[in-house]
Amino acid sequence: MKEQDFIDIIKKQIGDEFLGDDCAYLKEFGIVVSQDSLIEDVHFKRKWCTPFQLGYKSITVNISDILASGAKPAYLTIALSLPDDIDDNFVKQFYSGAKSALNGAKIIGGDITGGKYISVSVTAIGKTEGRRISSRSHARAGYKVITRGEYGLSSAGLNALVNGVKNEKLIRAHLEPKLDEDFSKSISEQIQTDYAMMDTSDGLADALFKIAEASGLSIVSNEIQGMYGAEDYHLIAAVPEEFLKKLTNFYIVGEVVEKQDFVLKIGHKEYKNYDELKLFDHFRRG
Amino acid sequence: MKEQDFIDIIKKQIGDEFLGDDCAYLKEFGIVVSQDSLIEDVHFKRKWCTPFQLGYKSITVNISDILASGAKPAYLTIALSLPDDIDDNFVKQFYSGAKSALNGAKIIGGDITGGKYISVSVTAIGKTEGRRISSRSHARAGYKVITRGEYGLSSAGLNALVNGVKNEKLIRAHLEPKLDEDFSKSISEQIQTDYAMMDTSDGLADALFKIAEASGLSIVSNEIQGMYGAEDYHLIAAVPEEFLKKLTNFYIVGEVVEKQDFVLKIGHKEYKNYDELKLFDHFRRG
Repeated sequence: MKEQDFIDIIKKQIGDEFLGDDCAYLKEFGIVVSQDSLIEDVHFKRKWCTPFQLGYKSITVNISDILASGAKPAYLTIALSLPDDIDDNFVKQFYSGAKSALNGAKIIGGDITGGKYISVSVTAIGKTEGRRISSRSHARAGYKVITRGEYGLSSAGLNALVNGVKNEKLIRAHLEPKLDEDFSKSISEQIQTDYAMMDTSDGLADALFKIAEASGLSIVSNEIQGMYGAEDYHLIAAVPEEFLKKLTNFYIVGEVVEKQDFVLKIGHKEYKNYDELKLFDHFRRG
Repeated sequence: MKEQDFIDIIKKQIGDEFLGDDCAYLKEFGIVVSQDSLIEDVHFKRKWCTPFQLGYKSITVNISDILASGAKPAYLTIALSLPDDIDDNFVKQFYSGAKSALNGAKIIGGDITGGKYISVSVTAIGKTEGRRISSRSHARAGYKVITRGEYGLSSAGLNALVNGVKNEKLIRAHLEPKLDEDFSKSISEQIQTDYAMMDTSDGLADALFKIAEASGLSIVSNEIQGMYGAEDYHLIAAVPEEFLKKLTNFYIVGEVVEKQDFVLKIGHKEYKNYDELKLFDHFRRG
């Protein structure tokens, strides 16, 4: 089974009031919450990354979800499961890496247990502080989809690791992705309408598809280099065209249109369902 | 290394502003947060529990931390890591069990990934709603330590499982521990002073020791059957003696006294450091 099949089962079991976005938005507290795990030999290999880089990336993938919601990163808990051969130096380096990725958030607790391999599960809490919180389902026809940064570097870095190619720039893009809090904040602090924002952790094409689908609309896009590659951790946002004048340093990657017989069109290629995108599946078996 | 050694390293790395209790208390939002994991072959064995029971217990151990803080269980996220041979029926049953343990909380999200064995990491959020939040360090000399319920059933149940003894009552006490929200609520809603509360997930003796140590005081206790066994998930609270008249259905297990040359005295036996208690260590290697 794939991740999406399991998620469908879970939705049936618990309802989907809070599911659908990477963060759950708890209005009563003014916070958003997200939890994401990194599992050895599924999401990373020990020989490919330092403990510092693992700590860095564990935090980064979660802070990225907070930024995608538009909230401000505030607090984190970290659950670590560690095999016998892990020493205190690993834990020190892991936490050094974690600390270097906090983006202003604080680590407030967690759990540490044994295990047969390394697994890390991080919960991140962001605060809304008057910012407007995004949802994948909040795109509207006529909105422009914008982003910032270069695509494909992270997946090229993963390829370099898999094939033993020493390209430091690409490998760093994969192991130490940089987040763009400014993009998130400048939208969520200024915007007065519903909008959709997501990170591109599963690829730019993936994010475009998911926003179109969740909003019940279609997106028309041009082909951009690297847009199918995963783990770039940039942000995309679907916002009203007139809002663009409040922003700087972005480019337009697509336009939201009324529902067509495709969900996403990239150049001449039309995608009607998610499987056609054949994207990176985080539910790779170890 | 043991869990405590790693925790000491982590405290050095990130400070201990929020560490020390099972929940972190975020006053600015009026919430407490706790994260706890269950790892296959460390905390449970697949052949000993049903998927329903695993779901039930994963939630219960986290809700227990929320109740120990005095807060009201409110929201949960669940990160599941599942090996290849897990089917949709497992996921359905797991979530049925999880739902049956919610104590009024809602599941709002999480993550599902592959893995070589089952691991579950749950984050629980409780709301303070005007209740007073406990801390292990808030016992005061003269306070009485109270609890409710019977000790030793869960560890006897674990023994039954290990030794293949079919004793349904004991095994259920281990796999489906019942929480006592009333004990938590009736204290945290009424008390006007600092107080210490903890669950007895690592044993009653363990909890007495940790409250005494965190408060910089000593506790004198009588020997009670089962007090060294773990995973009973009852609560103990150190509260002023005059507060006891506001409570019903409890018994006194100890008294907080000025700091002695022991941390905990049980009957005639004095414990000066934690290792002497030789307690259940959750950091058992799989």
